[in-house]
Amino acid sequence: TNPLLNVSGTTIFEVMSRLARETGALNLGQGFPDGNGPEDVVARAQVTLADRANQYPPMLGVPELRQAVAAHNKRFYGIDVDWQTQVVVTSGATEALAASIFALVAPGDEVILFEPLYDTYAPVVRQAGGTPRFVRLEAPDWAIPEDKLRAAFGPKTKAILLNTPMNPTGKVFSRAELQLIADLVQAHDTYAICDEVYEHLTFAGKQHVPLMSLPGMAERTIRIGSAGKTFSLTGWKVGYLTCPPQLTATIGKAHQLLTFTTPPNLQHAVAYGLEKDAAYFETLGSDMAAKRERLARGLTAAGFKVLPGDGTYFLICELEPGIGLSDSEFCLKQIETAGVVAIPVSAFYDSAPPTNLIRFCFCKSDGMLDQAIERLVKHA
Amino acid sequence: TNPLLNVSGTTIFEVMSRLARETGALNLGQGFPDGNGPEDVVARAQVTLADRANQYPPMLGVPELRQAVAAHNKRFYGIDVDWQTQVVVTSGATEALAASIFALVAPGDEVILFEPLYDTYAPVVRQAGGTPRFVRLEAPDWAIPEDKLRAAFGPKTKAILLNTPMNPTGKVFSRAELQLIADLVQAHDTYAICDEVYEHLTFAGKQHVPLMSLPGMAERTIRIGSAGKTFSLTGWKVGYLTCPPQLTATIGKAHQLLTFTTPPNLQHAVAYGLEKDAAYFETLGSDMAAKRERLARGLTAAGFKVLPGDGTYFLICELEPGIGLSDSEFCLKQIETAGVVAIPVSAFYDSAPPTNLIRFCFCKSDGMLDQAIERLVKHA
Ligand SMILES: CSCCC(=O)C(=O)O
Ligand SMILES: CSCCC(=O)C(=O)O
Repeated sequence: TNPLLNVSGTTIFEVMSRLARETGALNLGQGFPDGNGPEDVVARAQVTLADRANQYPPMLGVPELRQAVAAHNKRFYGIDVDWQTQVVVTSGATEALAASIFALVAPGDEVILFEPLYDTYAPVVRQAGGTPRFVRLEAPDWAIPEDKLRAAFGPKTKAILLNTPMNPTGKVFSRAELQLIADLVQAHDTYAICDEVYEHLTFAGKQHVPLMSLPGMAERTIRIGSAGKTFSLTGWKVGYLTCPPQLTATIGKAHQLLTFTTPPNLQHAVAYGLEKDAAYFETLGSDMAAKRERLARGLTAAGFKVLPGDGTYFLICELEPGIGLSDSEFCLKQIETAGVVAIPVSAFYDSAPPTNLIRFCFCKSDGMLDQAIERLVKHA
Repeated sequence: TNPLLNVSGTTIFEVMSRLARETGALNLGQGFPDGNGPEDVVARAQVTLADRANQYPPMLGVPELRQAVAAHNKRFYGIDVDWQTQVVVTSGATEALAASIFALVAPGDEVILFEPLYDTYAPVVRQAGGTPRFVRLEAPDWAIPEDKLRAAFGPKTKAILLNTPMNPTGKVFSRAELQLIADLVQAHDTYAICDEVYEHLTFAGKQHVPLMSLPGMAERTIRIGSAGKTFSLTGWKVGYLTCPPQLTATIGKAHQLLTFTTPPNLQHAVAYGLEKDAAYFETLGSDMAAKRERLARGLTAAGFKVLPGDGTYFLICELEPGIGLSDSEFCLKQIETAGVVAIPVSAFYDSAPPTNLIRFCFCKSDGMLDQAIERLVKHA
């Protein structure tokens, strides 16, 4: 079998969720809400299921959703997008990433990736024949090391992959950092692939700024969003991307080979969701900010050192030096002793990871968060 | 951008469906039913949507569906399958194919493909770094040329991809042909990837035989099925594959990179569907046989020469020699004159295609078939 796909074990998210199911531990590992999503969006899917929408839709997505994605770009970020030539609906942001990478990257190309990073980025780049160039960000503030980023760009660079708000760190890239990236992308005549699935999940007044909205970047950026994260429906696997018109055909070809299309009933419901008024999106963020606060306070009470963070579903804790356990060992032990699942942050590195950080997910009901805190305090 | 994905235009299925939408022509092109699928299966999806099933399911699929796929293998074909180690749910058969090919094929490997073939097979093999070796079947009976098939196998062969019942020909591979393939696969210590999405759509007493059911083939075969085709719900994009246990981890890794998972609400409904009694599956096939008959009779009346065929959604007509139009020209003209869409079969070849065959899809309401026939007869 393909050695590129044969090297690593099952993804940590799956392993930890399975452990949670098997042991009954509270799952603050894999990033998904414990609720069932907004009732009106779900009801819309039920109606379109009965209605009409069970056969192949247009390959690039139903017009209603592509229009809604274009309008969403305009409404929140002032980005002008032609839905017919610049929007592709995908089977989740995972497929959007794979299709974007396959579309851009050919053997010999390099792709710049910030570490820590989601565990499909580097394998997909390699599957496309590309070589990842890692630029490592360091806790606790995860600032871009400008010299190292400059040095990573070169004649073989095809793209940089940026995840903001960033999983697992919770970092929201600043405008100055984005401008640095934009300048380098333009100077080296290359592309940016932006995983912005947590775009509406920022806290404490931090605003998400899409790289695509910076001058000169609309022609060079693929911007990826996710209904799973924006509507708390992670199982729906409806993603969407916005790209310059000259990339649409090639991305569409990759999409054709990977999934062809995405369930139209769910697409219609997501189109409806994207048209919700501003209050929905604000509440999504402020609710999540409160949950972060709640979990951070509880973890602190349980003796954890919580790192700062301004977005996503996640926060990171730094283990005490001299604790004598790696992050993975700590997480396994915590399942046994406290019955709470977290993710070892070493899983977000390609090699030589730090082993003193663990990630907790807080997109859960207050009751579940409180129960987890209670367990952790008790077993501290 | 990636030259492998940049070479060809938009897939013919999308182009023709778009033309149908734009012109109001009757769409006997892309293979999808015009109905909305079985009411009870759809109702089940509605219930599970409201219920519980909107967050990430297990990566390889919900247990209920994986169990149902295993049971379906046993019930219809006597294939013994352990659902926990041998079944993967995918976002449609398209993703199952891509994941299977990425899992098996590394640069330098060869994959044997029968022509004519569905238009993603060869591009995915090439994207994986593999080289397609084509073995061409010839109308009207599409028999395997044994010498050429033997010659195609060699030390670089990693897999053969078999589609039975076969799109676009309607051919159902015979047991003798399957035995030949099985012998060669075993002699050359290689694998078979079987696209069997039309498994329940065979006519005139022809039985579908999975290659996987032949002695010695369970360890070497990836068998792919599709809820879209088995439940007339092509938009749902729920596929499933059965494979030997030693391939599951690598296929699972490919699946993780491509989509990670598939909507759990639709998965639960498909699990329910697979447990339907024998009458459902028999009626699916016999209804489709009647539709083939109906369309074939009408096309014959309209002056078409209809080739034999025993399965799938499709039949092929041979254009008269000396008609002075290629298959593509004929199809475009037919949209203009008669308002009926068909697919030029040349789209199912990698190079040097015959240009005298066109494909009609008959998985449509009798009313729509009759209307199409009426138009074709009038403009004959
Ligand atoms: C698709 S599994 C991972 C979900 C997620 O984004 C995370 O937990 O990091
Ligand atoms: C996914 S589009 C193609 C549908 C189909 O199988 C066909 O028309 O051949």
